[in-house]
Amino acid sequence: MTTLQLLQQARAARGAMATASTEQKNRALSAMAEALEAHTPAILAANAADMEAARGQISDVMLDRLALSEGRIAGMAEGIRQVAALPDPVGRVLRHVERPNGLVIEKVSVPMGVIAIIYESRPNVTSDAAALALKAGSACVLRGGKEAHRSAAAIVAALREGLATAGLPAEALQLVEDTTRKSANELMTAVGYVDLLIPRGGAGLIRSCVENATVNVIETGTGICHIYVDAAADLEKALAIVENAKCSRPSVCNAAEVCLVHRDIAAAFLPRLRGRLTEDRSARGETPVELRLDEAAAALIPGTPAGPDDFDTEFLDYILAVKVVDSAEEAIAHIAAHSTGHSDAIVTEDDDAARRFTSLVDSAAVYVNASTRFTDGGEFGLGCEMGISTQKLHARGPMGLEELTTYHYIVRGSGQIR
Amino acid sequence: MTTLQLLQQARAARGAMATASTEQKNRALSAMAEALEAHTPAILAANAADMEAARGQISDVMLDRLALSEGRIAGMAEGIRQVAALPDPVGRVLRHVERPNGLVIEKVSVPMGVIAIIYESRPNVTSDAAALALKAGSACVLRGGKEAHRSAAAIVAALREGLATAGLPAEALQLVEDTTRKSANELMTAVGYVDLLIPRGGAGLIRSCVENATVNVIETGTGICHIYVDAAADLEKALAIVENAKCSRPSVCNAAEVCLVHRDIAAAFLPRLRGRLTEDRSARGETPVELRLDEAAAALIPGTPAGPDDFDTEFLDYILAVKVVDSAEEAIAHIAAHSTGHSDAIVTEDDDAARRFTSLVDSAAVYVNASTRFTDGGEFGLGCEMGISTQKLHARGPMGLEELTTYHYIVRGSGQIR
Repeated sequence: MTTLQLLQQARAARGAMATASTEQKNRALSAMAEALEAHTPAILAANAADMEAARGQISDVMLDRLALSEGRIAGMAEGIRQVAALPDPVGRVLRHVERPNGLVIEKVSVPMGVIAIIYESRPNVTSDAAALALKAGSACVLRGGKEAHRSAAAIVAALREGLATAGLPAEALQLVEDTTRKSANELMTAVGYVDLLIPRGGAGLIRSCVENATVNVIETGTGICHIYVDAAADLEKALAIVENAKCSRPSVCNAAEVCLVHRDIAAAFLPRLRGRLTEDRSARGETPVELRLDEAAAALIPGTPAGPDDFDTEFLDYILAVKVVDSAEEAIAHIAAHSTGHSDAIVTEDDDAARRFTSLVDSAAVYVNASTRFTDGGEFGLGCEMGISTQKLHARGPMGLEELTTYHYIVRGSGQIR
Repeated sequence: MTTLQLLQQARAARGAMATASTEQKNRALSAMAEALEAHTPAILAANAADMEAARGQISDVMLDRLALSEGRIAGMAEGIRQVAALPDPVGRVLRHVERPNGLVIEKVSVPMGVIAIIYESRPNVTSDAAALALKAGSACVLRGGKEAHRSAAAIVAALREGLATAGLPAEALQLVEDTTRKSANELMTAVGYVDLLIPRGGAGLIRSCVENATVNVIETGTGICHIYVDAAADLEKALAIVENAKCSRPSVCNAAEVCLVHRDIAAAFLPRLRGRLTEDRSARGETPVELRLDEAAAALIPGTPAGPDDFDTEFLDYILAVKVVDSAEEAIAHIAAHSTGHSDAIVTEDDDAARRFTSLVDSAAVYVNASTRFTDGGEFGLGCEMGISTQKLHARGPMGLEELTTYHYIVRGSGQIR
C-alpha cells in the first residue's frame, strides 16, 4: 500500500476512534496486549530476521536496541496495559462559562485526529506509541526504521488484531511500508491527513522535520543539558548530581553534557569532581568520564582541552564539558546561548540564586538540587510519555496522554445572534 | 535597522519582560495608553501621509480600515487599558505534585519569549497586538503592511515611550522597517529569535507561513464556516442565525459562507431563506445576499448555480453557497471535506443530532442553535484576542492572553538522583 493510501485509511478511521468510549478503548488496549503476547513466536521470528539482516550493518548498541525476547515482548504488553489503566484524556471539560446572553460555552479536550510518529529502530516504540495515540482517541500512523521493519510489521499485525477484537477499526493503526526518506517526507507534508507529527530520534531527523514539515510537528529529544554548580552549592550534592546526570544512562536525552562551575568554588570542587568521575569510577570498574575543560578549569585539573564545539554537542557518551563561570548570571547566559531547552539544573543552597535561575532559564524543565535525569513522563507522574518536547508550542517536557489531545469549543444556544 | 538587528534587540529584552512584575507590566500598559493619546497629532499626521500615498492604490474598504481619527486612537488607548485590567497570564501554577522521592514538581505558565506578528493594514492591530504580547511577558516584533507603515511607526514610537516610562526596555517592542516580502520571510525562518509567529491576514499570507516557516506558527483566521439546518430545526431560529452569520459582518472570518439544508425541510425552508436574505433585505435597503445553489436547492428556489469552487471559497461578501443534504451525516461529511476548521453550526431541536454534530465536527468552535459570529475573544469571555487559531496545536479558536504563554516545569529537590 502507498503511504497516501495508508493515510487515507487512517483518516477514515479517526471518526470511530474519536467517538469510541473509554471502556471500548481500554478493551481494545487489553486485547492488543493479549494479542501481542499470543503472537510472540511470530514477532520473535520477524525480529530474528531483522537481527540477521542488520548484523554487521549497525553498531552493537543499536543491535541490542533492536533485539526482542519473550521478556521484552511481555514488557511491551505490560506497557500497553499501563496505558489502559490511565485516565482517558478525551472529553475533559477544561472550561465552562455561561455568558450573559445565555450561551453555554465549553472548552473540551478532543483527539488530534491522526498522529504520525517517525522513529528509529527500537521495536518497543511501536507498541508504546500506538497505545498512547489510540488511547488519546487518534488514529496512529507509524513509520519506523528499516532495520526494525519486519519486527514492527509483526507487532502491528498483533496490535491490529486486538483493535478489531474490541470493535474498533484495524485501519486506525497503520505502519508505513516504505522505510526510505521518501515516506518521511510524505508524512512531513501530508497536510489534511496528519494532524500531528512527532519525530522521535536523532538530531538529524528532528532538524529535517523542523525544516521540511508543513504539518504540525512537536520536536522531541535533543538534550544539551547543563548542571550549574553555584558558589553556594553543597558540594556533596553537586558531586552526586553531576555523576548521576552524566553517568546513569549517558545515551539518553536527559543526561547532562555540560557542567558550569562558579569560580569561587572551582578550586575546591573540580579536583573532587575529577576524582569522582574518573579515578573512583575506574576503581569500581565503571567507565570513567572524559572531561573536556575550558581554560580556567584546565588550570585546576588535568583533562582534555575543550574544542570549539564541545559546549554545543550532545555527546550521549561518557564525556562532560566543564567551564568555570564568574557568576550565576554568566551561567544563565551560557545556558541561554548553548542549551537545547531540554533540562538544566542549578546546585545551590542560596534561595535567591535558585529563584533567579528558575525564572531566567528558559528550558522545558529547570531543576534546583536534583539530577536532570528526572525529566521523564513516569518520574513526573504522567504515567507514560510519547517523548520529551523541546519546543514551546503546545507541549513542553514529557508528553503524556493529555499533551496528545487538543481541545475545541462547544457553544450551545437557543437561537442567539450577534 | 535590519530585521536581524531588531530581532537581536527584542531577544535581548525578553529577560526583562519575562521577569517584570504584573504591576510593572500594567504600569507600562497605562503609560502606553497615555502616550498614544498624547501623540495623537503626530499619529494623525503620519496616518494622513499613509492615506495620501494609498489613495487610488487600494480599495475604499481598505482605505477605511487604514484611516485613523481622534476617536479611533482613543479607542486603541482604551483597548490597551482593557488589556492592563486582565489577569496576568504568567506565573500560574498549572500543576503541583510532590513525588514519593520528595521532588516538588510545578508546571508554571511562562512567557513565549519573542512573539512576532505579521499583519496587514489596520493600524489598531499595532497597539492591540503589542499590548497583548507585552502583557503576556514577551517581547514583541511587529511587521505591518506597507500602506500603514508611517501610522504604525508613529504608534510604536508612542508605545515605546510608554514602556520606557515604566522602566521596561523600549527594545521589547520592535517594528520591522522593511515591509517587503523579504522581512516576512526573515521572520518565518528566524529560528532562535522568534519563539512564536502569528500571521494575521488573508489566506495567501497564512499559506505562505505554513509552507515556509521554520519557527513555530499559529495559523489564524481563514473561515469557511457552515450552518447546517437539520430536519428537526426550528425554522425561525434557523432564518435568524443564517442571516446573522452571513450578513452582520460578511468581511470577518467567523461569518458563514455555506448553508447546508436537510432534504426533509428544504422545500419549507429554502423559499423562506431566499425571502429573508434577498427580498426582505432589499426592501429594507440592505444589501441582498447572492445565493449560489447546488442542483437540489436550485430545483426549489431561484439563484445562481453553484460553480465548482463555491463550496471551498471564503467569500467575505454577501454571497452564500447553499446545498441540500440527505442527513446529518452527509452534512458532517461535507463539513469534514470543506470546512477550514474555524466555526460550524447546527440548527436543530433534536438533542441526539446535536450531540452527533458536536462530537464529529472537528472545528475550533462547534455551535448548536447559535450564530458562528460569536467566535471571538470578547464573546467567549477571554477579554480580548490576538486572533482566531484554526490549527490544532497549542491554541484553537480565540487566542487570549493565556494562549500567548507557554509553560515549563520547575523541579525542586534536596539532592535527588535517579
